[in-house]
Amino acid sequence: MQFHLPADKMPTAWYNALPEMPEPMQPPLHPGTREPVGPDDLAPLFPMALIQQEMSGDIWVDIPGEVIDILRLWRPTPLVRATRLEQALGTPARIYFKDESVSPAGSHKPNTAVPQAFYNKQEGVNRLTTETGAGQWGTALSFATAQYDMECKVYMVRASYNQKPYRKILMETWGGEVVPSPIADPDHPGSLGLAISDAVADAVGRTDTHYALGSVLNHVLLHQTVIGLEAKDQLELAGERTPDVVVGCCGGGSNLGGIALPFMTDPKVRLLAAEPASCPTLTEGTFEYDFGDSAGMTPLMPMYTLGADFVPPSIHAGGLRYHGDSPIISALVKAGRMEAVAYPQGKTFEAAVQFARTEGKLPAPEAGHVLRAVIDEALAAKELDEERVILFSYCGHGFLDLAAYDDFNNGRLIDA
Amino acid sequence: MQFHLPADKMPTAWYNALPEMPEPMQPPLHPGTREPVGPDDLAPLFPMALIQQEMSGDIWVDIPGEVIDILRLWRPTPLVRATRLEQALGTPARIYFKDESVSPAGSHKPNTAVPQAFYNKQEGVNRLTTETGAGQWGTALSFATAQYDMECKVYMVRASYNQKPYRKILMETWGGEVVPSPIADPDHPGSLGLAISDAVADAVGRTDTHYALGSVLNHVLLHQTVIGLEAKDQLELAGERTPDVVVGCCGGGSNLGGIALPFMTDPKVRLLAAEPASCPTLTEGTFEYDFGDSAGMTPLMPMYTLGADFVPPSIHAGGLRYHGDSPIISALVKAGRMEAVAYPQGKTFEAAVQFARTEGKLPAPEAGHVLRAVIDEALAAKELDEERVILFSYCGHGFLDLAAYDDFNNGRLIDA
Repeated sequence: MQFHLPADKMPTAWYNALPEMPEPMQPPLHPGTREPVGPDDLAPLFPMALIQQEMSGDIWVDIPGEVIDILRLWRPTPLVRATRLEQALGTPARIYFKDESVSPAGSHKPNTAVPQAFYNKQEGVNRLTTETGAGQWGTALSFATAQYDMECKVYMVRASYNQKPYRKILMETWGGEVVPSPIADPDHPGSLGLAISDAVADAVGRTDTHYALGSVLNHVLLHQTVIGLEAKDQLELAGERTPDVVVGCCGGGSNLGGIALPFMTDPKVRLLAAEPASCPTLTEGTFEYDFGDSAGMTPLMPMYTLGADFVPPSIHAGGLRYHGDSPIISALVKAGRMEAVAYPQGKTFEAAVQFARTEGKLPAPEAGHVLRAVIDEALAAKELDEERVILFSYCGHGFLDLAAYDDFNNGRLIDA
Repeated sequence: MQFHLPADKMPTAWYNALPEMPEPMQPPLHPGTREPVGPDDLAPLFPMALIQQEMSGDIWVDIPGEVIDILRLWRPTPLVRATRLEQALGTPARIYFKDESVSPAGSHKPNTAVPQAFYNKQEGVNRLTTETGAGQWGTALSFATAQYDMECKVYMVRASYNQKPYRKILMETWGGEVVPSPIADPDHPGSLGLAISDAVADAVGRTDTHYALGSVLNHVLLHQTVIGLEAKDQLELAGERTPDVVVGCCGGGSNLGGIALPFMTDPKVRLLAAEPASCPTLTEGTFEYDFGDSAGMTPLMPMYTLGADFVPPSIHAGGLRYHGDSPIISALVKAGRMEAVAYPQGKTFEAAVQFARTEGKLPAPEAGHVLRAVIDEALAAKELDEERVILFSYCGHGFLDLAAYDDFNNGRLIDA
């Protein structure tokens, strides 16, 4: 059962969590001087509008009309009640999800790719670079730059470039240029850290070019709050008040932030992060200043981290393989405002297949993590005979991840 | 810009075109006796409810609640106004499409797979067989049977089975069993005609088993009319009256019938079929009695056909490679009520990429054909400076067809 907002009820402002955080945020530090980073330090990479959003004290930030015009291609996304999953579980819980898989790129990523492209274009920058691992973010940015007639160059981790040609073709179809990284060593399989270095070096070296990041940073989470803001209005349409628990899978934190931050100031709402046991940043990492990339080129950020040189096993949920976490998400976990749970990937594929067979939709492996947490919450509610209202973000479909399902269906999945 | 119907405004009855056709339909003939086929002839393959629908004289056929419960997982589908495509074309035309790509299987096919599975289950049949070429129909039936806890065996053309593993994995994830066809000759690449023979032979040989067909037949087009019925209500939401032209791509005719038949009795509305130049059934075929399969096992149907032994070139729009056409669609073209146009696939991919870059969505190669026709209609309206309202069915996404885009992007596409 779907609950739709009319197109004219799309949010017209993003929710900025920064001024309402439980504790004030610690600033990012310059990698060289270890002094707080200022706007000028970031100017070679980002347009001033995004730098201001990164540090903004305003609770609401207007969404430009030119951005709304593009988001409207697929937003508002449906809120769906998963009644058939509820029935299969025999739970008194009511389960709702925001279907972010309906975006052109098939995930929540375009929610921030579009405004990032727009603000760059507005400040006269016509070319963006970025890195991509499995390809979700590179796809989203290629789509977004195509809408504003900009150039996009994606440095794709070479191993993925060779093993996952479909994502590359999708980027190229939208006009993006995709090259394997590291560019300097054609025999190296590459890593996300090295691809960031390639993309940043390209942007720093050209005055017509900026760099774009798909997660972690404050302005990225800001743009994703359309997910939770729409969900609030749609829960009302569904006859619900507030959810009891809001759940998202968490790699860099943008999807989880998008669904959870608009509920942050309501103490009745539990917030829950689901992450891979093989990359247990929030559940087993340390809260400290660390680099965003493995090469140590980015500012130091206050976050839960497994160490900038941590290399997680090659699980299928490539979007969750990040050594650190968004400073906002990290601060919420540290303050006790958000819970976190970690799952091995076998358990997440069991949940994904149960969802596919009841609700029909084939989840991305990342979404398998949130589904595992949601099903466990629903079973706990059953145990307690409790009418729990569960809301989660269905962050993407798995049509380009079918090889992973083949491994699972045939018992070849490494249960890391 | 999307226009949504609330979930409780989903159609509760299908529109049956048979009693309102411009001329009475000629009956299908038994392949042996060449006498009109009766219900008993079809009983080994189909449940009685579907056989009755195949010949029904009622204009409206109620949709069972148990079917609505499943269709609601993704229906009503959005009606989208393609404003950015309009702008790119500089046309005064207003272009709307029904987004059938949001279904679990990624196409319009589940609209009929679900009721077909339901009626079989209701009559005590727990196992269905079918054939599939590229895999869209097998995917849809595997999804539908999973919802009613039934078994599904899909005979997949061996060449596709080997070359397109992703569709097979998707079917298996929903619990379907997929085997390469022909089963009797492991060295044979297979064909749709041979796969039909395998599936029919399996169903005829077991009392617990029926066969399911994904296009061509009257009851299949009946089930697809939810597309056009929803579109009518949504056009009203968008402030439009009737469309000037309704367009669909056409292979067996189920997608085109779904969007077009509910507008059939309004003489102000033009109906338009878009087909591949390499398989030009409606534009270059002959209207005559012919078999539905190449082996001559099915009833003879009155339709446009290229001959039951016609083998179209191996274009990427596998769903449009059919030698014949739905008797309903054929009769409408013969009566002059529907127009038809054929395109070589290069032109259809140009249209598909223009759509992907303006509206964001990546079309299935089949949908590239309707997009070519829609863009040409919009350009004709521009030429005439005419406010034409164009409605089409966006029948599926292309996430599992990216290899075809790679061929197009790199100039390797055979322009058949």
